[in-house]
Amino acid sequence: MAASDVKLLGTSPSPYVNRVQIALNLKSIEFEFLEETFGAKSELLLKSNPIHKKIPVMIHNDKPICESLIIVQYIDEVWTSGPTILPSDPYDRAMARFWAAFVEDKWYPTLKELRMAEGEEAKTAALEKLMEMMTLWEDAFAKCGKGKGFFGGECIGYLDIAFGSFLGWLKVTEEMLEIKLIDEAKTPGLAGWAERFCSHEAVKGVIPETEKLIELLKKFQAMAKAQSQN
Amino acid sequence: MAASDVKLLGTSPSPYVNRVQIALNLKSIEFEFLEETFGAKSELLLKSNPIHKKIPVMIHNDKPICESLIIVQYIDEVWTSGPTILPSDPYDRAMARFWAAFVEDKWYPTLKELRMAEGEEAKTAALEKLMEMMTLWEDAFAKCGKGKGFFGGECIGYLDIAFGSFLGWLKVTEEMLEIKLIDEAKTPGLAGWAERFCSHEAVKGVIPETEKLIELLKKFQAMAKAQSQN
Repeated sequence: MAASDVKLLGTSPSPYVNRVQIALNLKSIEFEFLEETFGAKSELLLKSNPIHKKIPVMIHNDKPICESLIIVQYIDEVWTSGPTILPSDPYDRAMARFWAAFVEDKWYPTLKELRMAEGEEAKTAALEKLMEMMTLWEDAFAKCGKGKGFFGGECIGYLDIAFGSFLGWLKVTEEMLEIKLIDEAKTPGLAGWAERFCSHEAVKGVIPETEKLIELLKKFQAMAKAQSQN
Repeated sequence: MAASDVKLLGTSPSPYVNRVQIALNLKSIEFEFLEETFGAKSELLLKSNPIHKKIPVMIHNDKPICESLIIVQYIDEVWTSGPTILPSDPYDRAMARFWAAFVEDKWYPTLKELRMAEGEEAKTAALEKLMEMMTLWEDAFAKCGKGKGFFGGECIGYLDIAFGSFLGWLKVTEEMLEIKLIDEAKTPGLAGWAERFCSHEAVKGVIPETEKLIELLKKFQAMAKAQSQN
């Protein structure tokens, strides 16, 4: 394949952007990271994703591709010589897609709900809902990973990327609320997986450190507060 | 391939279920349709989709697959000898997936908003938003379909199924509000496509007639009203 021109528009703390970074790293694809500024949208972003105006956008040989999981699938389908990201068996693929959709539609909204919950009652309700989901994840890990190291089996795959990209924000929530969402006692499978995922060559340095994310979150909250007082 | 045992759990007026029916028809796969009762959930449904408890569920050789677009992709990947549903080119696949996600996340919620809008102001706002989207669709049809008959080119493909399955409910909205969302003047590409899609062998008889859907909707509305008065 001829050398490709790959650009990624995004910001480093975005789990959605992290997904694309990890997929590109897995396939050993060189790319130019074009950092977007918070609160502003570059001309290139608006031109490349006129419908949603959102990051990430990957531009491959001048063609823009939007939406993180669609980009990850595209990467898998274009660079077929690297490690495969989607499982090869259609049923396993369907399961990986099912749980990836669960991250988007149910799990992450609940994690966010917990982080933003005001008052003990709301916090307890969100935490309970999330802990039930963590049990589902423990079970999904056993089924999808088939007793191997990752959701994708022996290697990082689609679901590892879809779910693992949120481990930074999961840790932020754990630290801020002084709780444990993944631990050796209740979710031993996930605990080992999270450790392996974060220290994988393709992931290391991509997901920002928890302290940095907390700092960023505090900055956002202060900005939002200042805006609401104006 | 050995004979397969395919069951589909669903209800006929559901566009999500219709997607699976159309994909199975396209691939000439025989299947058993297990009609769910409105307002009730069968034991088999609860067992097959314990996470979302929603139709459609396709059971293939005793393995359940959930979520309409995931099922359609599964069908395409398992029965490779029939006509292909996803485009073969990775970029075209990414575009088809992008617009299919647009149906779920933006377009159908707006169609529903319009149908449920109370008061002229809300109705006008929703209609305006939807008409802007119909222009986007006209453009997407030209780009994805490349001047051929369907979003998938010469044959019905993934995006045709994802979007086309909603044509019944689109017509319901047109009739009930006495408006035109797809017409020869403003969206000539879509108008021709909708006609071709609905009269395609794989689609005919799947999407219920507009009158039947309106009747059903009125029944639902009456039931909801009666419940709210109790």
